Amino acid sequence: MFPDANGPESHSGSPAETQAESETGRLEAFSDGVLAVIITIMAFELRAPVGGSFTDLRGRLPALLVYILSFVFIGIYWNNHHHLLRAARRVTGGVMWANLHLLFWLSLIPVLTGWIGEHYRDSAPAATYGLVCLGAAVAFVILTRAIIRADGGSSPVAAAIGRDYKGRASLLAYAAATGLAFASPWIAYVLFASVAALWLVPDRRLSR
Amino acid sequence: MFPDANGPESHSGSPAETQAESETGRLEAFSDGVLAVIITIMAFELRAPVGGSFTDLRGRLPALLVYILSFVFIGIYWNNHHHLLRAARRVTGGVMWANLHLLFWLSLIPVLTGWIGEHYRDSAPAATYGLVCLGAAVAFVILTRAIIRADGGSSPVAAAIGRDYKGRASLLAYAAATGLAFASPWIAYVLFASVAALWLVPDRRLSR
Amino acid sequence: MFPDANGPESHSGSPAETQAESETGRLEAFSDGVLAVIITIMAFELRAPVGGSFTDLRGRLPALLVYILSFVFIGIYWNNHHHLLRAARRVTGGVMWANLHLLFWLSLIPVLTGWIGEHYRDSAPAATYGLVCLGAAVAFVILTRAIIRADGGSSPVAAAIGRDYKGRASLLAYAAATGLAFASPWIAYVLFASVAALWLVPDRRLSR
Amino acid sequence: MFPDANGPESHSGSPAETQAESETGRLEAFSDGVLAVIITIMAFELRAPVGGSFTDLRGRLPALLVYILSFVFIGIYWNNHHHLLRAARRVTGGVMWANLHLLFWLSLIPVLTGWIGEHYRDSAPAATYGLVCLGAAVAFVILTRAIIRADGGSSPVAAAIGRDYKGRASLLAYAAATGLAFASPWIAYVLFASVAALWLVPDRRLSR
Repeated sequence: MFPDANGPESHSGSPAETQAESETGRLEAFSDGVLAVIITIMAFELRAPVGGSFTDLRGRLPALLVYILSFVFIGIYWNNHHHLLRAARRVTGGVMWANLHLLFWLSLIPVLTGWIGEHYRDSAPAATYGLVCLGAAVAFVILTRAIIRADGGSSPVAAAIGRDYKGRASLLAYAAATGLAFASPWIAYVLFASVAALWLVPDRRLSR
Repeated sequence: MFPDANGPESHSGSPAETQAESETGRLEAFSDGVLAVIITIMAFELRAPVGGSFTDLRGRLPALLVYILSFVFIGIYWNNHHHLLRAARRVTGGVMWANLHLLFWLSLIPVLTGWIGEHYRDSAPAATYGLVCLGAAVAFVILTRAIIRADGGSSPVAAAIGRDYKGRASLLAYAAATGLAFASPWIAYVLFASVAALWLVPDRRLSR
Repeated sequence: MFPDANGPESHSGSPAETQAESETGRLEAFSDGVLAVIITIMAFELRAPVGGSFTDLRGRLPALLVYILSFVFIGIYWNNHHHLLRAARRVTGGVMWANLHLLFWLSLIPVLTGWIGEHYRDSAPAATYGLVCLGAAVAFVILTRAIIRADGGSSPVAAAIGRDYKGRASLLAYAAATGLAFASPWIAYVLFASVAALWLVPDRRLSR
Repeated sequence: MFPDANGPESHSGSPAETQAESETGRLEAFSDGVLAVIITIMAFELRAPVGGSFTDLRGRLPALLVYILSFVFIGIYWNNHHHLLRAARRVTGGVMWANLHLLFWLSLIPVLTGWIGEHYRDSAPAATYGLVCLGAAVAFVILTRAIIRADGGSSPVAAAIGRDYKGRASLLAYAAATGLAFASPWIAYVLFASVAALWLVPDRRLSR
């Protein structure tokens, strides 16, 4: 196999700008592929109703609502990932593994979406979902730090991140949802939906 | 997470042309990924006949016909999406979410295709399919408007769209199919097939 | 929707070379996505043995062999498609639909692979597989012609195609396999394997 | 079909640098697609627990651990493949088939991951998994040689590969795991995890 898989770019002498372009290019393409499959396979998990009537369809409604929640969740990550990678300049071995680590957590979403769809009244699926969301949020922070470290001083990512109130609030909400799901899964669902709404509503200050 | 996920491009100072290229690039790549998986997973939904004879295969024929219909439907959207994005210049947070909104409706097609394949004599699957087609058509209109708004005055998309007779006719046909499916699902199927034919037949005026 | 989906490039005034690059780019990306999903979903169709012993694994051997055959089949198409698109210069609405038509036939391969895997002693699955291979081969010819027509006179594709002995032989073999599968499916399998071998063995004259 | 699918690039007269870029581009895109689907479908294989309690979730724990192992395994290959292709200059028919050969072995991982998840106490699934890992490792060596041969003298890949201690150690470990799985599958799991750790830990000398 290839011996210097953990960071040959670090000592590369080729022009930084050009290389950075193709470096992040394949990372983005691979991540896009994984996220695209996650979103579509989740819809596949919905499964067609057994009978052919609207009553049968109504039985699939909770599963549909959880699907919408997960769809928005993956959409937010795709959006954020897109913006993060656009600001990134270098891809080291550390960045690649930090990215795979994020994709790992996200890849668990479809199965959990299916689980909640079947058992939305139970605490365990909701709490597990919260835990995986928390894992993904932490993985995103790690990825951000890996990119800043790879870019070195005056990273455009570091400047763009700033205080990151939304990110911190999401982390807290996911942690709270994981714990409060044991009291009632519905509290967790309200928290998940609130985080989704937080990201969907445009941040007026930033986009002018 | 990344704080300015809702439109940092809006205040970007980098050269518009170059940036637009890579901006739409990843949006297209992600959408292509989702549409590619949708089309292939739909074929997977067909499922192999249980027995090994042609009689067993014949039982899968309705499912195959619905698959062809959905394949053409997704193909039309891929085609239109391709042309729309080629004319687009900027990708804002609004455009990204409008695009995800379109993909959401399209992602429901495989499950519904499987549902109709099993219950093609019932009204509910046909009406639901019509509703989802209608949702996708409306989402496409919203995406078009989001792109025109992002591009600002003299958008090439606005000029290219023009009157959009085909789009309007499709919207009407999907709405009619949703309602008339309750009278008979076969009316809905005829309407779905008519819309597909409308887009498949080349528009001679436009391509010279 | 977008009104000029059937060939706006035909009257485009932008520099042909540059545009052609991005034109075929997205067609290739979408086709790659579909082919990648087809290949992987086919492996998914293999299904894990029910028990945990080698005896259980042996029962999946016919399915594995059919999978290898289909994997090579899709690989050949990916290879040929790759070379065809590299030589193409323009993408019109006709080329896009001809490409989708090819992908339609290829998308049926995973289900049929699963069907043969379960019923490899029967004629119907082998004959249907032959028919779909024939459909894909014809679709490839149609796509080639659509590209030559879009490129206009002195198309590099037309020159590269030449006599196309391999393509013709494959078409004949698939037609023969479809018919002879009724005598014995094993004749069809030998023919399928022969076509695969024909394409796998490098053509020495051409590669120097 | 296309007659010169086995290496028209070999006698191509266009500028090597530019062509190499787009040559490896589509090979990378296709491989990324396959690897992205493999990773996501593997998560799909995990399947939601039948009941809605943590006890039900605990029953899926072995499957989750095998999933993590396979996720890292595919991640390593994506990493190595990424670096190998970056160093590659030409894509001949031989390189394309060597690449498909590698993807073939990797495409078997999801099914085997599912098999081990259900029967992790048996020898057969662990030994088969080891065999497929060995097949992938050998395929990677073949792909490396095909690229070096295509590049001709003074290939940057040949220089970068060097002694390749990690690759050789992995090969040996996979071969040992295949054999020792018959004594106990747990020895095989320890070996698989060791190889994963070997690649995850950054090589300090190389990344400075």
